[in-house]
Amino acid sequence: MPELRKDPIIGRWVIIATERGKRPSDYVTASAEALDPGKNPFAEGNEHLTPPEVFAFRDPKSKPNSTGWQVRVVPNKFPALRIEGELEKEGQGIYDMMNGIGAHEVVIESPNPDIQLEQQPVEGVARVLEAYKVRMQDLLRDARFRYILIFKNFGRQAGASIAHPHSQLIATPVTPKRVKEKLAGAMHYFAFKDRCIFEDILKQEIREGARLVYENAGFVAFCPFAARFPFEITILPRRQSAYFSDIHPDEILLLADMLKVTLQKLSKALNQPQYNFIIHTAPARYAHHGYWSTIDQDYRWHIEILPRLTLIAGFEVGTGFYINPTPPEESAKYLREIPV
Amino acid sequence: MPELRKDPIIGRWVIIATERGKRPSDYVTASAEALDPGKNPFAEGNEHLTPPEVFAFRDPKSKPNSTGWQVRVVPNKFPALRIEGELEKEGQGIYDMMNGIGAHEVVIESPNPDIQLEQQPVEGVARVLEAYKVRMQDLLRDARFRYILIFKNFGRQAGASIAHPHSQLIATPVTPKRVKEKLAGAMHYFAFKDRCIFEDILKQEIREGARLVYENAGFVAFCPFAARFPFEITILPRRQSAYFSDIHPDEILLLADMLKVTLQKLSKALNQPQYNFIIHTAPARYAHHGYWSTIDQDYRWHIEILPRLTLIAGFEVGTGFYINPTPPEESAKYLREIPV
Repeated sequence: MPELRKDPIIGRWVIIATERGKRPSDYVTASAEALDPGKNPFAEGNEHLTPPEVFAFRDPKSKPNSTGWQVRVVPNKFPALRIEGELEKEGQGIYDMMNGIGAHEVVIESPNPDIQLEQQPVEGVARVLEAYKVRMQDLLRDARFRYILIFKNFGRQAGASIAHPHSQLIATPVTPKRVKEKLAGAMHYFAFKDRCIFEDILKQEIREGARLVYENAGFVAFCPFAARFPFEITILPRRQSAYFSDIHPDEILLLADMLKVTLQKLSKALNQPQYNFIIHTAPARYAHHGYWSTIDQDYRWHIEILPRLTLIAGFEVGTGFYINPTPPEESAKYLREIPV
Repeated sequence: MPELRKDPIIGRWVIIATERGKRPSDYVTASAEALDPGKNPFAEGNEHLTPPEVFAFRDPKSKPNSTGWQVRVVPNKFPALRIEGELEKEGQGIYDMMNGIGAHEVVIESPNPDIQLEQQPVEGVARVLEAYKVRMQDLLRDARFRYILIFKNFGRQAGASIAHPHSQLIATPVTPKRVKEKLAGAMHYFAFKDRCIFEDILKQEIREGARLVYENAGFVAFCPFAARFPFEITILPRRQSAYFSDIHPDEILLLADMLKVTLQKLSKALNQPQYNFIIHTAPARYAHHGYWSTIDQDYRWHIEILPRLTLIAGFEVGTGFYINPTPPEESAKYLREIPV
């Protein structure tokens, strides 16, 4: 059973994923393995190679776990957290831990292993986003989970072990520390100014324009003022909403356009760079606030796109202090001018 | 001039290192370059290829910036922060920034490019540690600096761009966020329990033994309970002291033994893995506390060694939530049993 352990000094939780079973000797020879297409578990026709699907967009006549799908969501075969069981918490001397209850799912974005997310038509990207929403809404009903994290790793150095286009979902019984910090920052700003910090950021970015990358009727993409990485992009919705899972159907299409355009710009500008993206949404409602909470006014869901062009060295990991060699204004100007 | 910019939501400072001059097109073709030995700026005989040294251990008859040294400290030729000028802070709408004043130095650990730190005799490692102490004490006299960070990147993926053994020092005008979190965690624990959390950790690790790696008269090395990385190691001094720069001469020798043994164990266990280490020390005294501070009792300096065997994916960067596939008890047992 995996475990969740809490750092006693700064309060950061870590997943000790015992069942992924990396033994010391595994690291010595670790290297990327080429995947035989017949053994690609995410390819159409290989549905039997994954655990049974939990959701899919598929042709009306097709059967679950067979061909004929456009997007398919399956449990991760080597999950970092396990879905079965009750949450158990305990202390070990001064340390705190709980068993590793959670969900770990894979969203297979297309049956075609060679079509990247941004190469799909807008409707295709929208289907992937709709699958995120459906799974998030479903897992939020499970009272054991506090946070649903949706993210994508593209490229080996960005953490993708299988090349077939996919994203991931992890539901955790704790709210990640960085999420808590963002929530607290937004709450304090609201308490101090009676304004949403995300709305203030949006207004300033639109007014200044120097860090803007792309806008449409529903969303604004910009390189953030204190970007940690070259070409880092934040996508903010224009409508105030704390939860990604509350996105409207028309917003899904606009977000699909936004994601397609920004990822295409990155791909053209930097020759298909490795990247991560993360959807930052608010935690499950019961987990963090009572009737007095201002979260619906103070926090806004958003997406961070993090191209992996620079290495994350000891300095960054040890202190959380990043060195970014390209000013966001320069990144944004370059991306704005890339035609797509 | 580089800039320091603050994330308006979570308060994290970022260095925008404009003078390192990475333009968008630089990333497309970026790859590791082989270094002609004659052009290795850290090699003996090439002292003219670095800025003038700020400190060195050298033969009594030798002259500064010539051959005959054992350890040499020079300013970084491409510094992330600049030493000249007054600190200027300003707001830009809702954003906060300051100019990038600081120090960025390189500690060249040996004139020999092929002898890694752990391959030096204990006296050689002690000389490197003594150089750290001397530079830290010197820079702490500069009232513009709040924090002195000493770290080592070993291996290309861990952030080292030059293979010749070296470590780095960065002095910053702000205390890094992760450091502040540790300080706050230790302070609150002390306020609540009237005990130092580092002493409690040390006692529990020694009593349980399962995560111990190596002990000597001055220091204890163990894999931390909530390790983020496989084979992550914490080195804690037995004597309570908040500042690395207050280390005693006899402790320098014991720390040299400790660092040599643990790095040798890692190297043998994992075939010279890439790693980072970071010295966590308290910030400059005036920066953070008045006469009522308990920092001398609540915080203890320590070293984190972070082997880079797993990739840092979007999940980790976006949420600060790490997945560690090897339990620290297993890492520690393996390292304990490696003979050195």
